[in-house]
Amino acid sequence: MSTDWQTLRWIGGPAGHLMLLDQTRLPVACQEVACQDVESLREAIVSLRVRGAPAIGIAAAYGIVLGLQTAVGGDEPAFFARLEQVCQRLLSSRPTAVNLAWAVDRMRLRAGSLRGQCPPTELHAALWAEARAIHEEDRQICRAIGGHGATLLRDGMGVLTHCNAGGLATSEYGTALAVIYAAHAEGKHLRVFADETRPLLQGARLTAWELQQHGIDTTVICDSAAAHVMRAGLVQAVITGADRIAANGDTANKIGTYGLAQLARAHRCPFYVAAPCSTFDLDAPTGAAIPIECRDAREVTHGFGLQTAPEGIRVYNPAFDVTPAELITAFITQHGIVTPVDAPHIAALLTREC
Amino acid sequence: MSTDWQTLRWIGGPAGHLMLLDQTRLPVACQEVACQDVESLREAIVSLRVRGAPAIGIAAAYGIVLGLQTAVGGDEPAFFARLEQVCQRLLSSRPTAVNLAWAVDRMRLRAGSLRGQCPPTELHAALWAEARAIHEEDRQICRAIGGHGATLLRDGMGVLTHCNAGGLATSEYGTALAVIYAAHAEGKHLRVFADETRPLLQGARLTAWELQQHGIDTTVICDSAAAHVMRAGLVQAVITGADRIAANGDTANKIGTYGLAQLARAHRCPFYVAAPCSTFDLDAPTGAAIPIECRDAREVTHGFGLQTAPEGIRVYNPAFDVTPAELITAFITQHGIVTPVDAPHIAALLTREC
Repeated sequence: MSTDWQTLRWIGGPAGHLMLLDQTRLPVACQEVACQDVESLREAIVSLRVRGAPAIGIAAAYGIVLGLQTAVGGDEPAFFARLEQVCQRLLSSRPTAVNLAWAVDRMRLRAGSLRGQCPPTELHAALWAEARAIHEEDRQICRAIGGHGATLLRDGMGVLTHCNAGGLATSEYGTALAVIYAAHAEGKHLRVFADETRPLLQGARLTAWELQQHGIDTTVICDSAAAHVMRAGLVQAVITGADRIAANGDTANKIGTYGLAQLARAHRCPFYVAAPCSTFDLDAPTGAAIPIECRDAREVTHGFGLQTAPEGIRVYNPAFDVTPAELITAFITQHGIVTPVDAPHIAALLTREC
Repeated sequence: MSTDWQTLRWIGGPAGHLMLLDQTRLPVACQEVACQDVESLREAIVSLRVRGAPAIGIAAAYGIVLGLQTAVGGDEPAFFARLEQVCQRLLSSRPTAVNLAWAVDRMRLRAGSLRGQCPPTELHAALWAEARAIHEEDRQICRAIGGHGATLLRDGMGVLTHCNAGGLATSEYGTALAVIYAAHAEGKHLRVFADETRPLLQGARLTAWELQQHGIDTTVICDSAAAHVMRAGLVQAVITGADRIAANGDTANKIGTYGLAQLARAHRCPFYVAAPCSTFDLDAPTGAAIPIECRDAREVTHGFGLQTAPEGIRVYNPAFDVTPAELITAFITQHGIVTPVDAPHIAALLTREC
């Protein structure tokens, strides 16, 4: 698999900057934005220039590097104070995806492990190396997810996916789409249906674009057509990503995922969630503990520059929903397939080496 | 109930013309278009300036009047030849809604009943009167649907609807929305969730606008949020309209309706279809016999003037889906509630006086 774009690209050494493929411009323009400081990176996360749970984890790690560039000339207490400030700014950018908190924690732990052992310049260089490691590990994790997941797909299958859990949501390859890319690389012909994914159309704009670039047979449908497509017998597997998975397997993902899981159940179609171990949050016993981000009404009423609802109308715009564990056939992780989906199997997965 | 707009408005006598509220401009502009001939009316139907199964039936009846205005000076054979030509033009405008064919058949029957009895001018005047009767009867039918349906709703209920089955889809009041208007008029407070209804957003643009004008508590959601809203316990009834109902109760309606019916079943929520008797098509034994209109890919990829999917991507854009009878709790018709939904109960309904 090769593409001539990268979701995230760090330029230079610890004093360098992050280039992000601006996903709000796709598929019409393929343009990068430069993030030179933590505020521009935070803006990029909030406005979804970079999105997808794994990708915002990587972005946040680099965001810590950016935020500490101004602290390398000071003393250690000032460095750690600034670290805490930067972490809080990044943590407040989006509440649902746990990978962001996971990456921030990992960076904090790395800094803490070096406390009192080296000057701020070296601390900063070590954090830069940690961010690069998170970035590179994500590549390997996505490849492993793809390899495990591809065993679930057979030649000729119809696969439905929602939102974008592809290379654009990660360092490369993706989670749900990694499974499709890996099966495709094994010579399996798949017919992929991409839900357009209102309100921000990540499916139509991003997933369709990625799949098309990889020469995969892709059809865009409105979200509301998924049931009709399933009833017509065109879908043999549904695969989505995840933004946070509770200890019992309840899974938060893009709004619409829960409905798809219900429809998959009604059509006796397996429903898979592909995600790295960093998406599991054992501090959330069930989905009820996962915060659900509600976004601006204008994403729904003015999503395309045009006004598409009457002035002053009430809008409910949750960005995510929670799919209960019992509707999920299996998780596809870098360590293999987890099924049945329940707390003991998840605990066993996470004690391996995540 | 009073509004300062009308979905369809005939101006003048048999030589007059039809004014349509241009629904492609709502909710930003409330503008009428004049249809002076059958081709401009057909264009208005094809481009959805007028839409909704009952409303396009009324529009088609007036379209026959318009199309025959040029034939009143000729002889009877020429008049009937022109009638057939006009009927075919109108019948080919949209395939799924049966009310269009129903109205055309009724106009043909009326003309046939007068064959050889009066000159074309009088024939034409009689058809104009027939179109006006269809228009007026629709008002009464919608009121009756509202009255029967309101008995199913209790104060404080959450009601979810899809697409627009309101005054804009009929002469006035609507079918699904007539139920809400009637319950509201009885003093029941309802909280209505309006699916925005991709690709053409009839829910956000039309239903939300109508409900807002009537002071009804309305919240617009993305179609994909319906499952989440149901799971949160916010919906106690789903009510939609219908474009065609087969003899066994299988119901064609706006794409997304079938998925909602499955979700309603999963959440033990009643699923009602409100429609006049003219929506039943006993020539279609089951939903498999109902033609499903597929519309232009650009409704999905360029629906708002902006390109929202990559160039050249395949799109599947069925305008309707079929909900199997077993998922429908009851039909709400002008003659009362039909439940359970099956062929004998439908046959019994239609032998009354439809």
